[in-house]
Formats: sequence, structure tokens, C-alpha cells
Amino acid sequence: MPSQFDPPSGTRDFLAADVEKREHAFAVIREVFTRYGFEPLQTPAFERLDVLLGKYGEEGDKLVFKILRRGEHEASGEADLALRYDLTVPLARVAAAYGSQLPSPYKRYAMGPVWRADRPGKDRYREFVQCDLDTLGSQSLLADAEALCAQHDALAALGLPQFTIVLNSRRVLAGLLEAFSVPAEIGPGVLIALDKLDKLTPGEVTAELTGRGLAQEQAADIVAALTSQDAIDRVRIALTKTDEGMAGMDEVDTVLSLVAGQIPAERIAFTPRLVRGLSYYTGPIWEVVAPGIAGSIGSGGRYDHLIEQLGGPDVAATGSSIGVERILPLLPGADKPVPGRLDVAVTVMGPDLAAQSFRFAAAARAAGLRASVYLGSSGKLGRQLKWASDNEARWCLIYGEQEHQAGHVTVRDMRSGEQTSVPAGEIASYLAGLAGS
Amino acid sequence: MPSQFDPPSGTRDFLAADVEKREHAFAVIREVFTRYGFEPLQTPAFERLDVLLGKYGEEGDKLVFKILRRGEHEASGEADLALRYDLTVPLARVAAAYGSQLPSPYKRYAMGPVWRADRPGKDRYREFVQCDLDTLGSQSLLADAEALCAQHDALAALGLPQFTIVLNSRRVLAGLLEAFSVPAEIGPGVLIALDKLDKLTPGEVTAELTGRGLAQEQAADIVAALTSQDAIDRVRIALTKTDEGMAGMDEVDTVLSLVAGQIPAERIAFTPRLVRGLSYYTGPIWEVVAPGIAGSIGSGGRYDHLIEQLGGPDVAATGSSIGVERILPLLPGADKPVPGRLDVAVTVMGPDLAAQSFRFAAAARAAGLRASVYLGSSGKLGRQLKWASDNEARWCLIYGEQEHQAGHVTVRDMRSGEQTSVPAGEIASYLAGLAGS
Repeated sequence: MPSQFDPPSGTRDFLAADVEKREHAFAVIREVFTRYGFEPLQTPAFERLDVLLGKYGEEGDKLVFKILRRGEHEASGEADLALRYDLTVPLARVAAAYGSQLPSPYKRYAMGPVWRADRPGKDRYREFVQCDLDTLGSQSLLADAEALCAQHDALAALGLPQFTIVLNSRRVLAGLLEAFSVPAEIGPGVLIALDKLDKLTPGEVTAELTGRGLAQEQAADIVAALTSQDAIDRVRIALTKTDEGMAGMDEVDTVLSLVAGQIPAERIAFTPRLVRGLSYYTGPIWEVVAPGIAGSIGSGGRYDHLIEQLGGPDVAATGSSIGVERILPLLPGADKPVPGRLDVAVTVMGPDLAAQSFRFAAAARAAGLRASVYLGSSGKLGRQLKWASDNEARWCLIYGEQEHQAGHVTVRDMRSGEQTSVPAGEIASYLAGLAGS
Repeated sequence: MPSQFDPPSGTRDFLAADVEKREHAFAVIREVFTRYGFEPLQTPAFERLDVLLGKYGEEGDKLVFKILRRGEHEASGEADLALRYDLTVPLARVAAAYGSQLPSPYKRYAMGPVWRADRPGKDRYREFVQCDLDTLGSQSLLADAEALCAQHDALAALGLPQFTIVLNSRRVLAGLLEAFSVPAEIGPGVLIALDKLDKLTPGEVTAELTGRGLAQEQAADIVAALTSQDAIDRVRIALTKTDEGMAGMDEVDTVLSLVAGQIPAERIAFTPRLVRGLSYYTGPIWEVVAPGIAGSIGSGGRYDHLIEQLGGPDVAATGSSIGVERILPLLPGADKPVPGRLDVAVTVMGPDLAAQSFRFAAAARAAGLRASVYLGSSGKLGRQLKWASDNEARWCLIYGEQEHQAGHVTVRDMRSGEQTSVPAGEIASYLAGLAGS
């Protein structure tokens, strides 16, 4: 049962172990993107409402979190700001705002939370991190290949055990519609139906196609071409009939030849039935899939006019996105306990010895170790050793009356239980030795 | 004039150079906090409205960004969520929600944006990063001293050139009020007036004190005690008259003796006129000030009952906060240009050579260098070299028809202009050599 102290529905609190795993993954991705020459961009959590509305369709608009006007206007019940829904609309706004101040092409990555008022469910949150990589201002397929390779390298660097990339081009799809004489007005509907070939049977898709106005024979032909054993060859042959299809096939082949040697051949395949739901793609499109995971864990493609439609300049654009929230549980070591909080725990045996214990902790930190004194109220050694062990400290410095009299510190190895007596004046160099060992 | 493409009023876009400076500073702070055994906590950007309202006073409530209910409830104009206003209320909620799952004491840091619908102004934003460090569940002054030292070390590690810490205790203030026979009912008002001694003249503060109902002589005495050359001695003597004052003085002296050796003596001083506006402090209090900066750049103190008042359990608590947005412009190198985007820029001289150029860039990345191919449409070397230079690339790999024929790559040192011809098959090891040099 949800408690009044739970985070809001669809959001999560991340305690230390989760924060560390997440931040580690984000750092790995950032490092790969930086190596490709992509630069970071951070935009505010909210945008003016008019910047966001009308960009995601009617359904999307409903899922935008809207922020009430403030002060005397609060009572109006009107909103004038909204939490960002993705990282692409803010990119379009930035491209419009900073224009010539940005490098050309502008290669940027962005990694940060977005908010959607979706119904929360398994793996569906109202606050989740998106991880996008985009190049604005290049028509070259090299930019698509770069977006694809950077995405691949990031997933590989994260240690994702198994994944494959399915690649297509919107121009291949346009060529196919032409080659199979699909009437232009039902083209988009036909693509929507074909997009379901990874979920429905060929028969079901054929039925949906005829429902959308395609003749039975045409529907069966196009489904057969896309699902047969030799689908790729049949599609290649069909595409030779149209200029658009040939251009699309050329795009796919060029991208494949560019990434060869960087993406293992068995990890990427031309997949003519890949549609990608969103209508704004104009060139190569791809998705990353992993065994046992429904849907994709990453995607990308060229979208040459979207930035303009979103309010930015008319620039060529391509990019990729990693479904980072989906892959975090798949990463090796996801179940592994994180290392303890402390390297060195220092006992505090009474107020008179506290200042000295506090300095021992400082000496440990100066040696590059994570260290803390005991902050509780018990003067019992057993209790303090339990605290050291709960914090998975590697060593415990014990400094009681006896040590004080002798001018020593007892250094306890928390794994072996072995104890060493170290002169107080030498503890800094002793700890430095431990830190280096 | 603000443009329609500017970020919302009071918020900022951070382009690459800003992101890098900010993230570097955050990483430095995180590293110091971790070394003290503090662990990270991340909570959602928004909380349920009832969790936030009533926690910041009437004025504060007005500054909370409220989020409209969604779907069919949107038209009601009502809010049910709100953007977090600070990191302390979420901490109280987490302490209540996770209780025994948290280590005891719970030492956590949090660094992230908060949102306030304040009137934007110089150095006052509606979205800004807070950086908090708190220990819940320890009554020990060691915890206060740790919060103070960790804050000090973080500021020192950032390279903040000059700063000092003013230290006091709420119990010293309570003792002073008692020693100067201030009637209990006007005690809080008297503290508010005394808090202005760093901005107003002694005469002005005396006048405000009499306005608040203090007798003229008492007002003059207390102001004289706090502002005289020998203020500290006079306060110490006055405090010996009351138990609370002696206890407060003891707190201050204990904290000073604990931090001695870690915080240079000239950087921290007992400052009896320090009040700190917020009424919830119960023990040691401090502020960090820097020359030329009005107000404080950091603060902290013990607040033993606040977590319970905020909806959490009744735990002892102390912590410190760094005004990270205020100190970023003060840090050394704040004006220094950031290093360029690329180490290696690779020319693309025509489509036939593109795949090979793409592989050279990959080889550079494999050597740990940041590398990219040229993504523009010009086939002219001069144009591509300008792109390399705009990206401050250290080296440019030139691969044209001539190099292709010879099986070589021309490696141009972008600083000296010197060019070296390297066999294509040896470029990976050559780049690895450059990376290591």
C-alpha cells in the first residue's frame, strides 16, 4: 500500500546504491559521446507552455505536466509553463536561440530527466532520464553513421551483454510503397500496419492492410516480400524499380559500409520491415533490440525537417537515443552490492579522545581514503565495531584510553580481524601505505 | 529584448563550456563529501503538493511552483503536485519513508536543481542547484564538526581563493538574551534585529531593538557587547551568568577544538552576533563569507526538531549547504576558455574516401582521443582545416586522393603546422603515441 511518504506516483527515490549505479552508467555514456566530439547541453526542467504544446500530437499534449501561473494569477487555474516532455523540443529552441553561436554542425548530447503524465506501470515512469545524441546541420551519411557508432559504443562500453541493431531507411519504405503500387493516400496507414510485423502474424497484418484499403493481392505480396526467408533479396529486387527505392538502398548500404569494422557484422542488419512509428524521419532509421526485452532499448534516425517544425531553423538533423532506464537492469553487476561507504572507521571512546579521533579520520581522508568517526552515543567498542562493519569499512582505527596512554592507535583489519598497533604520530604515513596497497 | 526562443524567465540554458565548468565543480564537491562517508540521495523533481505546502511559511508557499492536475481534472485548475523548493523537505520525507532501511546515522548529500517562483534578478534564478550535506540521527558535536569540515574542504578543493567561516550557537544567543534580561516574549524579535548588525549601524540596530520593546539601556548594552573591540571577551563573561549560555559557549569551543588543524585558525571565528534568520536551528550555526560577496556563500547548523516538523521522524540533525551557484563565478579559471572539442579532426575528401576517413577517426578514439570526421559538404581542404581549427583540434588527419594513392595519411600538427606522412596501416599506433605524448 502506498504510504503518505512514498514519492509521487510514477516517480522514484534513488538511495545511495541506485544513485551510484545510475551515475556510473551515465558517466560511461558521456565519456563515449565526448570521444566522438559531441558536446553537452543542459536546458531548464520547464519550458513556456506554448513552446511545448502542439509538438507531440493531441495525445502527447495531454501527457505534458503543466505548471500553474503564480502569485495573483494562481487562482485563474491557468498554466503558462510545462515540464519538458523530451529533449528534442528544447534542442530545437536552443538551435533557434543561439544559431550562429553554436558550432556548425552542432553535435550535442543531452542526458537528463523528462516528465510525462502517463499512467505509471512496469518500466513506465512519470520521471525518467533520456539520453540523446544529435547532429544538426549535416546532410552527410557520415553523421548518421557516427550517431549509430556512438550509440553502439556506449552500449558496448556499458557491458550490455547482447544486442543487435536493425537498420532501414524511410526512403526504402517509400520505394517499396511505390514498387508495390500502393496508392499515395493510404501510404502512411500501410506503413503503420507493416510496423506491426514484429508483433502480429503475417496473416493479421495482411488483414489490417486490406482493412486500410489495400487490394488483397497487393497486401499479400508486400507482406510476403517482407517476411519471406529471402526478404532482403526480394526487397532489393523490388526497389530497383524506383528511383526513391534505389536511393534508399544506397543509404542503407553506405551506412553499413561506414560502420563496418566498428560495429561487428553480426550485430547490425538491414531490416526492410522496420518502420519506426514517428512520421518525421526522412532517411536512415534504426532500432536497438535485446533478447528478452519487448520493444527497443535504443533508436535513431535522420529527421531533416523536424527542427524547423518544432520552431527551430531548417537544418538537416540526425541522432540516436538510448533507452537508459530500460537497460540499467540489464547491465552486468546490476544485482551486485555496491562497495561499502567507508574505507576507514574511527572509534570515539569518550569526549576527551574525540578530537584526536577526529584528526585520525582527517589523516585517512588526506591519504585519499573515505573515513568517518563514530557519531553515535555508545561508548562500547563492540557497538562501534558493529557500526564499522555495517558501513563495510576496510579498517577500523581504535583509539581508547589504553591507546591514548601508550600514544598508539590500534588499526584493525575488518576482514581478517588482525590488529596492529601504530604510533599515533605515524598514522598518516601508515594509512597512506594502506591506501596504496 | 527577450526572444521567444529564450529559456523561461529566471532559467538558463547551459551550453558546453558552462556545463563543463559546472559539472567539474559538482564532481569536486561530490568527491569531498564521499571521502567523509556521506552518501548520495536523489529524489523526484516534484512532490505531492501537501508534502510541500505549509513548510516554508506563507511567503514560501507562494513561491512554490504548482503543477496542474492532469487529464479530465486539468480543467479544474487545481494543483496536486509541486516542484521541490529545497532538498530538506524531500530528505524529511525519505527519512520517514525508508526509516530503518537507512544507515544510522544517515549521512547524505544531495545536489540538484530546486525551483522557486521568485522574481528573477542578478544571481537570483527560478531554477538553481542546491548542494546540501546532512547527518540525521546524531546528537554528537562531531557531526556538526564533520559538516563544517566537509563544507570547508569542498570550498578549498574548488580553489575558492578567500573565504572565512563565522561560527556561533543558538544556545549562545539564548544565553545572551537571558544574561541581558530580555523578556522571553520579545526574544525572537530581538534576534531578528541583532541579525542586522552586519548590515546596519549599531545605532540603527539599537533603535530597532527599542522599537521592538527593549528598554533603551538594555538595547544599548547588548549592541555594545556584540560590536565592541573586545566583543568576544564581553560575551564570554556575560554568558557565565546563565546555564544555557555556558552550554552554548561550550558547544562553540568544542566545535572549534574539533576542527582545529583541519580548518586554518584564521579562517574560522566565533562570532556572537551571527543569528541566521531561520528559527529552526537549535545548536551550532555558521555561515561562510567571502570578500566582495554580499550575504553568505554557505551556511549550516544543527536543527534537531526540524525533520519531525517537516513530516519525518524526530531525529537529531545537522548539516551544511554550499551556495554553489554563487561561488561558480568566483572560482579560478572561471573566465578561462575550456579546452577544444576535439583532439583529432579527420578530413573527408569525397565520398570514395569517406569510409577510410571514418575508420581513422575510430582508430583515434580507440587510442583514447576525441575524434570526428568532417561532416560538412565542402570538399576543399582549406575549409576543412578551418573546421578543425574552429574545434581546436590538436591534430588534423588529411586523407585526399594523393594520400590514398600512396597509402598514407598526412598528420598535421595544428599548432605548429608541421605535417608528417604516416602509412595508413600504422596510423593506430602513431595516434596511440600522440595520445601518450
